[in-house]
Amino acid sequence: MTKSLTETLGAIKPLNLEAMETARRRQDTLTKPQGSLGQLEDLAILIAGITGNPRPKIRHKAIITMAADHGVAAEGISLYPQEVTGQMVLNFLGGGAGINVLARHVGARVVVVDMGVIGGCEPHSGLLCKMIDFGTKNIAREPAMSRQQALDAIEAGIEVLESEIAKGLDIVGTGDMGIGNTTASSAVCAVMTGKPVVEVTGRGTGLRDEQLTHKVAVIEKALQVNQPNPDDPLDVLARVGGFEIGGLAGVMLGAAANRIPVVIDGFISGAAALIAAGLSPTAREYFIAAHLSVEAGHRVALEHLGLTALLNLRMRLGEGTGAALAISIAEAATKVLDEMATFEEAGVSESEEVG
Amino acid sequence: MTKSLTETLGAIKPLNLEAMETARRRQDTLTKPQGSLGQLEDLAILIAGITGNPRPKIRHKAIITMAADHGVAAEGISLYPQEVTGQMVLNFLGGGAGINVLARHVGARVVVVDMGVIGGCEPHSGLLCKMIDFGTKNIAREPAMSRQQALDAIEAGIEVLESEIAKGLDIVGTGDMGIGNTTASSAVCAVMTGKPVVEVTGRGTGLRDEQLTHKVAVIEKALQVNQPNPDDPLDVLARVGGFEIGGLAGVMLGAAANRIPVVIDGFISGAAALIAAGLSPTAREYFIAAHLSVEAGHRVALEHLGLTALLNLRMRLGEGTGAALAISIAEAATKVLDEMATFEEAGVSESEEVG
Repeated sequence: MTKSLTETLGAIKPLNLEAMETARRRQDTLTKPQGSLGQLEDLAILIAGITGNPRPKIRHKAIITMAADHGVAAEGISLYPQEVTGQMVLNFLGGGAGINVLARHVGARVVVVDMGVIGGCEPHSGLLCKMIDFGTKNIAREPAMSRQQALDAIEAGIEVLESEIAKGLDIVGTGDMGIGNTTASSAVCAVMTGKPVVEVTGRGTGLRDEQLTHKVAVIEKALQVNQPNPDDPLDVLARVGGFEIGGLAGVMLGAAANRIPVVIDGFISGAAALIAAGLSPTAREYFIAAHLSVEAGHRVALEHLGLTALLNLRMRLGEGTGAALAISIAEAATKVLDEMATFEEAGVSESEEVG
Repeated sequence: MTKSLTETLGAIKPLNLEAMETARRRQDTLTKPQGSLGQLEDLAILIAGITGNPRPKIRHKAIITMAADHGVAAEGISLYPQEVTGQMVLNFLGGGAGINVLARHVGARVVVVDMGVIGGCEPHSGLLCKMIDFGTKNIAREPAMSRQQALDAIEAGIEVLESEIAKGLDIVGTGDMGIGNTTASSAVCAVMTGKPVVEVTGRGTGLRDEQLTHKVAVIEKALQVNQPNPDDPLDVLARVGGFEIGGLAGVMLGAAANRIPVVIDGFISGAAALIAAGLSPTAREYFIAAHLSVEAGHRVALEHLGLTALLNLRMRLGEGTGAALAISIAEAATKVLDEMATFEEAGVSESEEVG
């Protein structure tokens, strides 16, 4: 029985400060100069607060990769033909995509979800079908979807997240696939952050200058045609978003409601995080920013969310590839907190500044 | 039979450009927009050039962590008492230190080497003894070691590296332990880069402002007393270096001579890399910079070496902890190159810009 969005938002509580304080105190007893493992130390303390466990363990890891098509592809804003979305879903299921390789490397399972690929995907034992519709409408002309579809997409994401908990889920990463989805994400990002379109629009899969100028014009037209209301994240998602963006926002909210750390991948996941944090500012405390994407709007989205990325490797593939690498860093951080010897255990003298 | 430094320097050849070109061509056939995995793509191509294998595989991984004491500790430049060096060696051997946890996480073995800890270390099946002397002399008063000891330290590092090859070694990371070794490293860095001491000296394990001012003064005195010759890296090592710094330089040169990628940890490893690259500019092509340390001189050292760090997690522990995390990134990069499906294999349409 899936929780409604309203129920899920109501279940999202602040971090457990007591678990964080216990974790912080333990960090300072471990055989290293205080703070010398930098972001690893902070991350383990954060995960303690998220899970409520002062020595959290990460064993079960999943990347949820959601695919959908975008009507705005008709405006020629991508270098790739639209059928690539469905072809890449098959590639995910066959294990040959970037996310498959990187998820295997870090010991995470990949959960592939069809949120609305044009033509639909053939049934496959590894594919979750949560299709909302055969792609969104062209946002340069009309709203991407109805308000009900936006709600359905988010609730589908909550359902996917909750169905994964039964299989074991100590951390979850988000990922996306959808030709045209950087265009939708830039539109969402412009509305939610209040920044000019040109500042949050990038080259996607590799646009040249004049193609980028065209993409900016398409997004500006989409905002003018649709007039999304920045104070109503569901309206923003419906007017200029995408089904996978809504689904990923649902995954994030579901994770927060269940006290599971959620690793936000790149720009498309960042747009979903803006929607999710718009619906629940507290949910943001459960987000871990995986990496800083090359895509122009991503830095703006992370700044708006108040998140610092763990990695900066000039990546811009999506699929959850950045999230996979960051999940491994998060696991390393929790192992440091859990497994390192204390000064007392190891018989190592403490700093002259301590005690 | 260990190679001499001269033989090792003579064995260091440029990267294999043919293997790199084959790897680069394969990257562009994989199911991702060209270049979209950023530094992961570049890193796999580099490792192809290092190993000469256009589809390199990383299976056997080691971190070589070298420990030694520093006479300059007598000047009060560290918060920790000098016995911590030997105590931490025991912690490494017991598996409770940061490097043990992170090396286990990435599947790398830790090779612990005593290069010259005061009092010596008890024999232990997990410890390699390459002691040059019971710690260096106090560089604020006299040279750290003789020129012969500097050569011995480097050749010991070459020997350690070569003895690990028999156990399987596809990539090696460097690590250090030694109370006082940021002071020696800042001295080496100032001489080798020509930068003022104040620009390359940091807080080490956590000095306050006035303690940092004292540390800078000690290093300036060491340079004035010893007058190291920047054009003679062996002289720099002998006058203001350390036994673990020399040993790590030897590990780096040995790795380059054997076409093994070497992942340079933080600031102390960076100082060793300056010595190694000073002896063989070609060796630098075999170096992968793990992370950007908080320690002030590290950025200067990396810039001088022309290296870009993979990670920036505000770490400053040393031991090889940054190298461990970066080895996992390097392994991921080679798996992407080797395991991802091509557009043709996966039946995915290529970009309209291609072909």
